[in-house]
Amino acid sequence: MKPITTFNQLTEHLTTLCKRKRVVAVCPNDAHSEYAIKRAVEEGFASFLLVGDARLLHSYTELSIYSDNIEIIDIPDSDEAAREAVRLVRSGKADILMKGLINTDNLLRAILDKEHGLLPAGKVLTHLAVMQIPTYHKLLFFSDAAVIPRPTLQQRIEMIWYAIRTCHHFGIEQPRISLIHCTEKVSSKFPHSLDYVNIVELAEAGEFGNVIIDGPLDVLTSCERESGNIKGIASPINGDADVLIFPNIESGNTFYKSVSLFAQAEMAGVLQGPICPVVLTSRSDSGLSKYYSLAMACLSSNDI
Amino acid sequence: MKPITTFNQLTEHLTTLCKRKRVVAVCPNDAHSEYAIKRAVEEGFASFLLVGDARLLHSYTELSIYSDNIEIIDIPDSDEAAREAVRLVRSGKADILMKGLINTDNLLRAILDKEHGLLPAGKVLTHLAVMQIPTYHKLLFFSDAAVIPRPTLQQRIEMIWYAIRTCHHFGIEQPRISLIHCTEKVSSKFPHSLDYVNIVELAEAGEFGNVIIDGPLDVLTSCERESGNIKGIASPINGDADVLIFPNIESGNTFYKSVSLFAQAEMAGVLQGPICPVVLTSRSDSGLSKYYSLAMACLSSNDI
Repeated sequence: MKPITTFNQLTEHLTTLCKRKRVVAVCPNDAHSEYAIKRAVEEGFASFLLVGDARLLHSYTELSIYSDNIEIIDIPDSDEAAREAVRLVRSGKADILMKGLINTDNLLRAILDKEHGLLPAGKVLTHLAVMQIPTYHKLLFFSDAAVIPRPTLQQRIEMIWYAIRTCHHFGIEQPRISLIHCTEKVSSKFPHSLDYVNIVELAEAGEFGNVIIDGPLDVLTSCERESGNIKGIASPINGDADVLIFPNIESGNTFYKSVSLFAQAEMAGVLQGPICPVVLTSRSDSGLSKYYSLAMACLSSNDI
Repeated sequence: MKPITTFNQLTEHLTTLCKRKRVVAVCPNDAHSEYAIKRAVEEGFASFLLVGDARLLHSYTELSIYSDNIEIIDIPDSDEAAREAVRLVRSGKADILMKGLINTDNLLRAILDKEHGLLPAGKVLTHLAVMQIPTYHKLLFFSDAAVIPRPTLQQRIEMIWYAIRTCHHFGIEQPRISLIHCTEKVSSKFPHSLDYVNIVELAEAGEFGNVIIDGPLDVLTSCERESGNIKGIASPINGDADVLIFPNIESGNTFYKSVSLFAQAEMAGVLQGPICPVVLTSRSDSGLSKYYSLAMACLSSNDI
């Protein structure tokens, strides 16, 4: 498989698979969810169970292509709808969970429920996103912009594993993973830089398989060959990173929001850790971003 | 004075002042420093004392406009050169200090020397930068991307004061200052968000004069009106921030490097706190970035 380097290639690839993934969406009665869901139906890579207030979901049955691939389950209360959606995943009726117009905390409560939820005991819940940046030569994955404030070493290792698996789904055989810091210097003032030393050692020992992992590196040295050359930094990443692992949520979140705003990048993201990918875009994300996130989830659910 | 909204307006404004600021540069024997220094001489807003190895600085005397406004002080040892540059500032012979091809730590040692340095006791040393982003409608100031890892409340207050004074130099009468976080929610999990509550209270009590300060806010809500509207956030910043105060160095540094790389922004920056502005650009910054930093320092040294 040739690596997928744009969102267009991603959705084209899904279309060629000729198999609709089954998505359950909770309260998708907002314009952006509707755009994403209808387009995924039209492109032929997903079918949907919509759980929510049926009176708010009638526009999903306008065309027969929609009604053929969309089933509405009338549960007006959003918390109940969330629990029902989780139940549908657990019983094998859906491959992917998608958030609509429901508060994130309320949806997470259903996902994280110890007895009836979707996160196996001991699994790390984290957010993996991918950006298509007009000024970068391929897709750029990054984690974590949304869930874990200060990852522990073990959480960082899990974040890297999720990224590696997703890169494989995207056809990237040897992902280049950059561990982000302000500089290339390791310092006990910055505990994450000590974690990075451990992680690079694990990678060199072959623990992560066929990957290139290096750090601490800054965003410039990770993504621009020239910067490393000027600084005299010889990193195997070589300005060609596939994945950026951020030290904390503030830096990951700043990256996501400033690059999407100022570099006009398109973004997709999924929650990792639960037994199925969860599309959990925020209110201010575009319809296109929700659509690409759905596509990313459909690709990632292949081996779950 | 009309607000300065681009770097071109900044250098034009300096040219109209018809007064050269006196800059002492330490070891400026690199191509980017040479570009910045020669251009500042040509534009007429600065004259220079160059302290370093004279054998490496001969290209600064090629034209008479250079030799008329550039004096070379031959001190081959870079640490001695740094100490001499600091002495020249202390004795009133220079208004601004500029770093060339010398290790940042070595230059800082001379600046921070308790007895012979440039930082008054009790003053906070911090970095203030400003970006010209093609997709933003004015200059955007931010702090701290380079010096203080985790600012205390008092350090944040000083960072804001430096930003306010610099905004005034740029003709911004009522700076809009956004205190950056991942969301608009205050939480004890994120101690900086508690600092923000204090700072907003101080601002509302008039402590900072004629400013608008709000936070916690994310980068999108700070710089894009539409995002706030979608989220239903009514902030007086209104997507029109002049200044972003970042919670920690990792997020500030990520902002600076990712926006300069992916949004092709131009950057200027100076160290604040010492008795004169210090231009301390890094090896990977462009000649243009050094030039704009010089210009920012020349404008900021007005009232020092």
